[in-house]
Amino acid sequence: MTSSDRLSLNQATVKYADLATALSVTQEAGISSIGLWREPVADVGLRQAVAMVADSGLRVSSLCRGGFFTASDPALRSQALDENRRAIEEIAALAEAGAPGSAPVLVLVAGGLPEGDRDLAGARARAGDAVAELAIDAAGAGVVLAVEPMHPLYAADRGVVSTLGQALDLVEDLSPDVAGVVVDTFHVWWDPTLAEQLARAQGRIASYQVCDWITPFPGDALLSRGMMGAGHIDFAGITALVEKAGYTGDIEVEIFNQEIWNSDPLAVARRTVQAFGTTVGR
Amino acid sequence: MTSSDRLSLNQATVKYADLATALSVTQEAGISSIGLWREPVADVGLRQAVAMVADSGLRVSSLCRGGFFTASDPALRSQALDENRRAIEEIAALAEAGAPGSAPVLVLVAGGLPEGDRDLAGARARAGDAVAELAIDAAGAGVVLAVEPMHPLYAADRGVVSTLGQALDLVEDLSPDVAGVVVDTFHVWWDPTLAEQLARAQGRIASYQVCDWITPFPGDALLSRGMMGAGHIDFAGITALVEKAGYTGDIEVEIFNQEIWNSDPLAVARRTVQAFGTTVGR
Repeated sequence: MTSSDRLSLNQATVKYADLATALSVTQEAGISSIGLWREPVADVGLRQAVAMVADSGLRVSSLCRGGFFTASDPALRSQALDENRRAIEEIAALAEAGAPGSAPVLVLVAGGLPEGDRDLAGARARAGDAVAELAIDAAGAGVVLAVEPMHPLYAADRGVVSTLGQALDLVEDLSPDVAGVVVDTFHVWWDPTLAEQLARAQGRIASYQVCDWITPFPGDALLSRGMMGAGHIDFAGITALVEKAGYTGDIEVEIFNQEIWNSDPLAVARRTVQAFGTTVGR
Repeated sequence: MTSSDRLSLNQATVKYADLATALSVTQEAGISSIGLWREPVADVGLRQAVAMVADSGLRVSSLCRGGFFTASDPALRSQALDENRRAIEEIAALAEAGAPGSAPVLVLVAGGLPEGDRDLAGARARAGDAVAELAIDAAGAGVVLAVEPMHPLYAADRGVVSTLGQALDLVEDLSPDVAGVVVDTFHVWWDPTLAEQLARAQGRIASYQVCDWITPFPGDALLSRGMMGAGHIDFAGITALVEKAGYTGDIEVEIFNQEIWNSDPLAVARRTVQAFGTTVGR
């Protein structure tokens, strides 16, 4: 399989498309894999989504996303764990329905600091505890929990796991069959220890996602990602290190960007194929 | 000296005030130290600025800022080094004119990637080389070069030195008399290895700056800093680690925030005293 055969369109890149549209534009653009999100799956219901995925002939590269388990309130924490257990069941069914090579990978975003709470170390510890607790459910379902380090920009309000090193520490005591990490170029490209941490990630990378870091930084910090080639990231360099770490799975393009969201989804899928070919797939 | 006696008003917090106004509001608010910027000093000329500082009776805690030496073009690089040599002379004179306890510290911001350049490691190496080269001038002038790790948010366009660990690596081979690091809460608070790196920073902290990380993240990434207490940072925790690392100098409040800039500078200085007292100085 060449790099381009490994391209997967993450549904977030065509955020306004429903599941049927996302599946069809992926196929039409000649992409053989898709990264799913829970919300559009829930919109049609899991059973229907499973049938649609099976009909599409596409691989499923991951489900986004579980996590958000930093609450210190026991009731909220318990709710979050239950929600993650449902997500584990969903990705198990969706990956089973996908074409061979599908990956039963649930992407986990830790969540931010609880309201008014300044104890970052405490929130980080709770995130680690939650992953360890969910690993039992993941093992039962044959699912891999993929902890996603998020750019430090999001440490307060979205993801207290801020570096690849920290994510690797967090899964270290769990089997690689149930717990790994996500490498997303947007979140990790700046890290001076990236090469060293990717070397350490041998066998632990459960998902590889790409998009670019663009400047000037857009007004909305959540929508600051660009198509590969539009920004400052050296995709060839990072991809080589990811492959050296043993990752041979699909490579998801996941872009949160208002201009891309406002575009026709098929045009976006085709633009993705092209940009991928000249950067990551080169 | 209590923590509150160590408060220094960094001029960037009252950005629109000229040097005379910045000095007078600092005094009127009962603050005994000021962190200067090159531009307002240049507006009156160095000789006049030195006289004004001497008259004020204030300590000078640092000069912002040198750096911006990641250019790969030899002519641009040489220009940047010359500019930094002038900044070294300026802080030497200003600290000499300040009250006892003034610190001849030049804050250095590395600079971003050159236009179209995606070689982050290369830019980082050039930043390290430049600091080593300037260390000779700093030694001659009795000045400490203070390398400021900037939030990873700025890695592409302002500062390729992204973590305290990286800044410490960069100054490791130089004498602590001529090269240290800046710890700015805004830039480093998210770092999962912060406690460990601050322990390693023993005797290497040349400047400690505080301001808060606020959410939601404002439209302009450069103006996203808040008054202490307005955001998510645990100032007591970080300050304790900074003091444990042997830092007993002034603590600068440096806030880039449009609403604060639009306020009356004396009111801002008084607000700073109050916020400092209930957070850092507690």
